[in-house]
Amino acid sequence: MAPPHDDKAAADFAEDSTHKRPISNILFIIAMQTEALPLVNKFQLAEEPDSVFPKGVPWVRYSGKYKHLHINIVCPGKDATLGVDCVGTVSASLLAYASVQALQPDLIINAGTAGGFKAKGASIGDVFLASDVAFHDRRIPIPVFDLFGVGSRKTLSTPNLAKELNLKVGKLSTGDSLDMCPQDEAAILANDATVKDMEGAAIAYVAHLLNVPVIFLKAVTDVVDGDKPTAEEFLQNLNAVAIALDLAATKVVDFINGKSCSEL
Amino acid sequence: MAPPHDDKAAADFAEDSTHKRPISNILFIIAMQTEALPLVNKFQLAEEPDSVFPKGVPWVRYSGKYKHLHINIVCPGKDATLGVDCVGTVSASLLAYASVQALQPDLIINAGTAGGFKAKGASIGDVFLASDVAFHDRRIPIPVFDLFGVGSRKTLSTPNLAKELNLKVGKLSTGDSLDMCPQDEAAILANDATVKDMEGAAIAYVAHLLNVPVIFLKAVTDVVDGDKPTAEEFLQNLNAVAIALDLAATKVVDFINGKSCSEL
Repeated sequence: MAPPHDDKAAADFAEDSTHKRPISNILFIIAMQTEALPLVNKFQLAEEPDSVFPKGVPWVRYSGKYKHLHINIVCPGKDATLGVDCVGTVSASLLAYASVQALQPDLIINAGTAGGFKAKGASIGDVFLASDVAFHDRRIPIPVFDLFGVGSRKTLSTPNLAKELNLKVGKLSTGDSLDMCPQDEAAILANDATVKDMEGAAIAYVAHLLNVPVIFLKAVTDVVDGDKPTAEEFLQNLNAVAIALDLAATKVVDFINGKSCSEL
Repeated sequence: MAPPHDDKAAADFAEDSTHKRPISNILFIIAMQTEALPLVNKFQLAEEPDSVFPKGVPWVRYSGKYKHLHINIVCPGKDATLGVDCVGTVSASLLAYASVQALQPDLIINAGTAGGFKAKGASIGDVFLASDVAFHDRRIPIPVFDLFGVGSRKTLSTPNLAKELNLKVGKLSTGDSLDMCPQDEAAILANDATVKDMEGAAIAYVAHLLNVPVIFLKAVTDVVDGDKPTAEEFLQNLNAVAIALDLAATKVVDFINGKSCSEL
């Protein structure tokens, strides 16, 4: 293909060529170490002690080579005082920002567990690809600020990936609470979401800021519109669903190997 | 003073000496440019076009010298698509992280407007120093995760500053919504908060991670437990209260000039 002759076309060309270059460097962002460790083992990644992150942060990075891919898996790690995983949008966005700056990935995959809505077709153990993300707990009732709060955006389009691996596709809604108050529920309904997590839309925001494509793999641990309390159902299913997530993520990586973003 | 003889004492000594060194480099983090510009003018700061931030982010930095102090004021800037200030915890935490990494401040001051509770003694135009910060919209009803969600922490103790400038002192509660749903209200009550904002606890989290002292100056634009709708009252009072905040922030900087953190 001959190089284009004007700046606009040159910019399009550069963007296209990025999307058409085979993906070589994948960054997984995973909020809980229980969710991450099966994948770390599967890809035979090693924990990197000489961190690319600043001193004092609890963030953990595993890296290595799998097939033709460099893979990094980063987790926000355990809170130094409380010892629990640093879940939620603040930690996830910081980790996404610092990881993209340090590792310059071609593609981000945010993998993790989620609540699912049975009214929208979700069941325990389903793994969803998110077509869209938005926030459901950032209510700013001032014109235009309201849209900023919701922060709705499309993810990287991956029709071949969804079809080949037979993954369900649905919209993802993000908030910092594990439970769901009536205002959250109304916003999730407005977001037309099938799955609900605590990090996705924040990672999408950072990926958009830094111009990195991102996809979301969300495995359903609990049915939000079901009979059981979310926290109980989440803890009960976490380990089993982490295995389903691990299987799906491995298939996704095998599918990505050798392909460009535009082929997904 | 002779150098200490063991590691623990050496660490304490290093920490003490940091706190006892005169402050020379202040980082203001201010969510809205309307709130920031009076201070930018007051300190005669210049906008820095060659940003220390990555390409594509909307963050804005003003810097300059005032008395014996290097002052940077950073704002998250306007959303590229929507044109409104990037308020809330995700933008504030990213900006705090990137600014601390790039500018290595001795002290962070998060200044901004807030909602106040008249039941706790707040009135329109009051400027509060926050003694404590916590989140009110991160409900994770699993033991220990619940505490992580609330993320309560003390700010830098500044008894001399509060006394000298006759500032009110109260607890600050942070959430990503401008309005307040019943669940937020219950959490704010549990946090014993006098003022409510959309960034503070996230900035405190980052400051804690990166070991930088932080203080919070919050000027009351609206009475949350009053009769008027928050959004309306906020917009009505924003400009006038920004001037009160500007006056207080200037007095705070004048007080800090020549002092160490431990003298505040």
